[in-house]
Amino acid sequence: MSTSAKPANATITTPTDREVRIERIFDAPVERVWQAFTDPKLVAQWWGRGNELVIERMEVERGGHWRFVEHSPDGVHGFEGRYREVTPPERLVQTFEWDGMPGYVAVDTNVFEDLGDGRTRIVTTSLFHTTDERDGMLTSGMEEGLNQSYAALDKLLATLE
Amino acid sequence: MSTSAKPANATITTPTDREVRIERIFDAPVERVWQAFTDPKLVAQWWGRGNELVIERMEVERGGHWRFVEHSPDGVHGFEGRYREVTPPERLVQTFEWDGMPGYVAVDTNVFEDLGDGRTRIVTTSLFHTTDERDGMLTSGMEEGLNQSYAALDKLLATLE
Repeated sequence: MSTSAKPANATITTPTDREVRIERIFDAPVERVWQAFTDPKLVAQWWGRGNELVIERMEVERGGHWRFVEHSPDGVHGFEGRYREVTPPERLVQTFEWDGMPGYVAVDTNVFEDLGDGRTRIVTTSLFHTTDERDGMLTSGMEEGLNQSYAALDKLLATLE
Repeated sequence: MSTSAKPANATITTPTDREVRIERIFDAPVERVWQAFTDPKLVAQWWGRGNELVIERMEVERGGHWRFVEHSPDGVHGFEGRYREVTPPERLVQTFEWDGMPGYVAVDTNVFEDLGDGRTRIVTTSLFHTTDERDGMLTSGMEEGLNQSYAALDKLLATLE
């Protein structure tokens, strides 16, 4: 997106047959964006697409676990994983698993790039064990949910200024 | 191995660039071998290579979690994961993660085959996200540890007769 405050959709591509790449620019400095990704009180306000999100566990350090439960109009959805790498404010690598498909684990690598003009680019690369798992995620409504969550994050970041 | 009671080494191969395949025959009926893999009191007696093993969590059902802590002479090692499929006495699929490499998750598919003569073949296929992760596991001493655990399992199965 431009420097306009209007929410933009993320750019989603498939660089390899087991990966999804998501790119999105946020109108806030990298330290603030990092904070929104790693402070449970802030994550609760955007991660769940605007729905109520219960942060059951969130230990932001290498080896720490996370578990979020989203209470949406269509039901209760649990998500969990473990942090592989936490390098503020640049890299956050964690596993991702949805209760509806237990034992199917993606690795999400989030890279936060300071654009030098008060904005931040986040590139998330999700690696799956198989192409079928990757394609299952792509057709699950992930893109819509992601854009809803990132729109909520835009709003949250504006209030943190 | 033959029908001899002498412990045999598992046969370890690499069928693809992200998999390890482990094959081993046990001198016990499939129901008993299944029990040794799914009853926490029995798992505690062989899984940890003969070392003390604390079963912190073991919910053997789809979506259930497991966490084992091995107390060996060289230190304390935690392992955990989640069950993807539990089909007695044929298939047990679960994820596997070692605390020393958090966020690096393999999927282990265990197939139990009744050989019709009182013996059982177990074929375990471990799928990793990358070849490097697979190779890291292969060079970690996995083979020696596996053979120690399976030798302990041989002994346990003999006592269950």
